[in-house]
Amino acid sequence: MSKKIPPIEEISKFHGHICPGLTLGYRAALLALAWLEHHRSEDEEVVAIVENRACGIDAIQYILGTTAGKGNFFIEDYGKHVYTIANRNTGKALRIVVKPKGRWAKEGETREETIQRLLSMPAEDLFDTREEAIDLPPKAQVLQSVVCESCGEAAMETKIRLYQGRKLCIPCFEHESGNSTCLLR
Amino acid sequence: MSKKIPPIEEISKFHGHICPGLTLGYRAALLALAWLEHHRSEDEEVVAIVENRACGIDAIQYILGTTAGKGNFFIEDYGKHVYTIANRNTGKALRIVVKPKGRWAKEGETREETIQRLLSMPAEDLFDTREEAIDLPPKAQVLQSVVCESCGEAAMETKIRLYQGRKLCIPCFEHESGNSTCLLR
Repeated sequence: MSKKIPPIEEISKFHGHICPGLTLGYRAALLALAWLEHHRSEDEEVVAIVENRACGIDAIQYILGTTAGKGNFFIEDYGKHVYTIANRNTGKALRIVVKPKGRWAKEGETREETIQRLLSMPAEDLFDTREEAIDLPPKAQVLQSVVCESCGEAAMETKIRLYQGRKLCIPCFEHESGNSTCLLR
Repeated sequence: MSKKIPPIEEISKFHGHICPGLTLGYRAALLALAWLEHHRSEDEEVVAIVENRACGIDAIQYILGTTAGKGNFFIEDYGKHVYTIANRNTGKALRIVVKPKGRWAKEGETREETIQRLLSMPAEDLFDTREEAIDLPPKAQVLQSVVCESCGEAAMETKIRLYQGRKLCIPCFEHESGNSTCLLR
């Protein structure tokens, strides 16, 4: 819950490189962090619902502590640069929408010039934001594991399927039964 | 591509806290890093396919540079502590399976004692590993954006749907047409 804001270099070290997409995500994450009064999620108290799978979501994970492994990072892949950040403690949510590219892109710049400009542009020229009410996604569950009777590997009990009286993990179930589980997960 | 191995404290700062699940993921990630000859993914050259949504996958993201935002991190949620790491440059893949809990858990320990033990146990007591051939997932695509004719927000063109002659983003399409797109994504 430190108030120190990580510089973009720290996020690019996590992401692997720096690019305009990561920079836009970084600016969105800083906006969300200010709205959260600089509270980075230690556990699941902050939730992020991101509507794309592009570079910027790594900045959201890194800055807000809403990470894939913590059950508070949800990807609804609509291919939209939209980030909804919710605070379970207050029940409030902020929707951050990147304005269409035509509103902030500039022709003839180098990649480095674009990154620098995106870092310094006023947030209101890049994003539309509004507070809104959302239904919070359920919290992550920790359940017991069951050993698959085919491969011998363990799987969370809710992911076990039954076939001919045996408890199977999903890959073994699909392989042995010929059934796909995509509608059952 | 630094050979410096991040300490668990650095990963727990990213994750938000330290726990046995993160520690197991950290040990798996270090095993994969050694197999990759200490190459952390700058772009998409390393791929991770993780079979759960639990804490350990944050260590995989952080250590290997296979992150949700870079298109080289795939969650196949079978509820299994299994991590498959592939190297696009060599075409090889390593499957790392956490042994069933009964093989490495110990009753009556404090959380801190468990973490310390997991950090120091021999890798072969925690994991089964094997090199295997896999079909590599496709690389991420960067496509143009189209502005939704209902909400005015931009979406990647492959995510646009048509309804009554208008180009709509998925949430507007679902709202206006009453059709779910879950089988169309």
